[in-house]
Amino acid sequence: MAEFDIIDLIRDRCALAREDVRLGIGDDAALLAMPAGQLLAVSTDTLVEGVHFLPDTAPFDLGWKALAVNLSDLAAVGATPAWATLALTMARAERGWVAAFADGFAALAREFKLALVGGDTTSGPLSVTLTVHGFVPEGAALRRGGARIGDAVIVTGTLGDAAAGLSLLRQPDGGPQGAQDNAGDDSRPEPAPAQETARSALLMRLRRPAPRVAQGLLLRGRASACIDVSDGLVADLGHVCAASGAGAEIEAERLPASSALLQLFEADARRTFQLSGGDDYELCFTVPDAGEAAVLAALARSGCAATRIGRIIAEPGVRVRDAAGRRIAVARPGWEHFS
Amino acid sequence: MAEFDIIDLIRDRCALAREDVRLGIGDDAALLAMPAGQLLAVSTDTLVEGVHFLPDTAPFDLGWKALAVNLSDLAAVGATPAWATLALTMARAERGWVAAFADGFAALAREFKLALVGGDTTSGPLSVTLTVHGFVPEGAALRRGGARIGDAVIVTGTLGDAAAGLSLLRQPDGGPQGAQDNAGDDSRPEPAPAQETARSALLMRLRRPAPRVAQGLLLRGRASACIDVSDGLVADLGHVCAASGAGAEIEAERLPASSALLQLFEADARRTFQLSGGDDYELCFTVPDAGEAAVLAALARSGCAATRIGRIIAEPGVRVRDAAGRRIAVARPGWEHFS
Repeated sequence: MAEFDIIDLIRDRCALAREDVRLGIGDDAALLAMPAGQLLAVSTDTLVEGVHFLPDTAPFDLGWKALAVNLSDLAAVGATPAWATLALTMARAERGWVAAFADGFAALAREFKLALVGGDTTSGPLSVTLTVHGFVPEGAALRRGGARIGDAVIVTGTLGDAAAGLSLLRQPDGGPQGAQDNAGDDSRPEPAPAQETARSALLMRLRRPAPRVAQGLLLRGRASACIDVSDGLVADLGHVCAASGAGAEIEAERLPASSALLQLFEADARRTFQLSGGDDYELCFTVPDAGEAAVLAALARSGCAATRIGRIIAEPGVRVRDAAGRRIAVARPGWEHFS
Repeated sequence: MAEFDIIDLIRDRCALAREDVRLGIGDDAALLAMPAGQLLAVSTDTLVEGVHFLPDTAPFDLGWKALAVNLSDLAAVGATPAWATLALTMARAERGWVAAFADGFAALAREFKLALVGGDTTSGPLSVTLTVHGFVPEGAALRRGGARIGDAVIVTGTLGDAAAGLSLLRQPDGGPQGAQDNAGDDSRPEPAPAQETARSALLMRLRRPAPRVAQGLLLRGRASACIDVSDGLVADLGHVCAASGAGAEIEAERLPASSALLQLFEADARRTFQLSGGDDYELCFTVPDAGEAAVLAALARSGCAATRIGRIIAEPGVRVRDAAGRRIAVARPGWEHFS
């Protein structure tokens, strides 16, 4: 499959008409019209095989996730997604693989009316770099640096599911309670249906994260600071604290857990996944006490649960306390390249 | 060296104040203000170790070239460079290497007042993906599809130098006429100084290409079509022809050659480099006959030589003729991934 066939295939599957795309894929640059009064929000994220995803990841899931992790960054600043460019590096170009990758990308792109406007396709070790573009009114963007002492710290959704899902894939016995990936392997007992459902739910969180774009928009004018939880709660909340010149105190008992996580993992493992697992793509934000009830109500109306997990304090750093108020040490606050 | 130290180091070395950068490196997304009446031009290009550059490439040169090849795409549409995001994937993070890479990037970025506004740093096989952003007034962008039958085909600068330089690096004896890379090897005769100068000139074209940004701006309103020569003249001119629904006839004798290329390579090798070598980053553009003299004069005033090499014809494809008018077969028109 030649390079230009790949480009045609991706274009055909990811086509999405937007009036502001004056020129899309196929020239030396895309030409795009910005709406008046808005700032351009730009973010880029790379996924590398063997680092950010397992070598046997389904191409549909990879196309989805590459876009999801980038849209999550736009969500974190409260931007409306608009355009993306795709740099796709592959060892080989197999039509079926590329088609499935493009379908995964397109499935999520359609949901947010995002147009793929350009890219580069090269040979090399498998990796995907997306650059996403969105709009946010001047002065309305959510930032990391606005948290104030006393603000509530809130997270959307649940934490730890994706890391728990990854741990299931990495365990040779298929999971802590007999859940297994290879249904055709008769040498192991069948998992109970409820366990299998829980296992699938965790893997879905790992493979097809749902970026909190609508929630980021809702938080404009309400949250004092915001970040998406990609590297792990403690690490990412630490960025908010550092940028805000403050610290945070988290109550471990309040960390929201999915029923799947509660079903398949004991408390210690759950806590590790929730505090430092990464790949959650929930929003962690701060809000003045007086605004907490209104923001929780607005999120609930959008169909998104959200949980107060702690508060901003003066002392730098992120402290985690258990139900008895004792401080819990967090060994590895989050994902760190080159550590 | 930790990931956040790398980001700080790159930010410190690539800092460039622009009033339109409302928020640069360090949050979930950059926030950028577009000038009124302009379109945003966006392009992305990846360089992969062992595919686009040799494994022992100096990091300064890699930082420079990664930006140059992207700026060349903005030049090809006639856009003014503004911002870039950098996705840098490395197996290890060595401070000296990252600093030199950032310095190479910054040296070229300063020349064009381009600000690095964001990025992603990950572990994995060495590769660089840049996404560059520029401005072009609505309706003024140069496109591939505007060439008309009878238009002159013109290229800036000289062709084939970078491919010739690469061939020098790949020859174990250090070059066709004894030029050598390893000056400390006493077993070979010293090259003549003039040969060494020529060899250095070709390697410089390979390592630090100069994107034709100023020339792209000059061509707005003058050229009927434009592309940058990155994959090879015949391949890239072929894209212009395909997009324009026409063909082109090139006279091989007219292809501009540098004195270094003339000095170190015979006619057959020169021709191959010039027609299909790639990595030139010159502009190849078309202009109606009536506009040819004026555009050549304007380019000369900008300090850039340009040469008419052929014309647009009705028959599809790119034909190359020798001095006697005989058609020359082009075995490999240009670089093709996955071929």
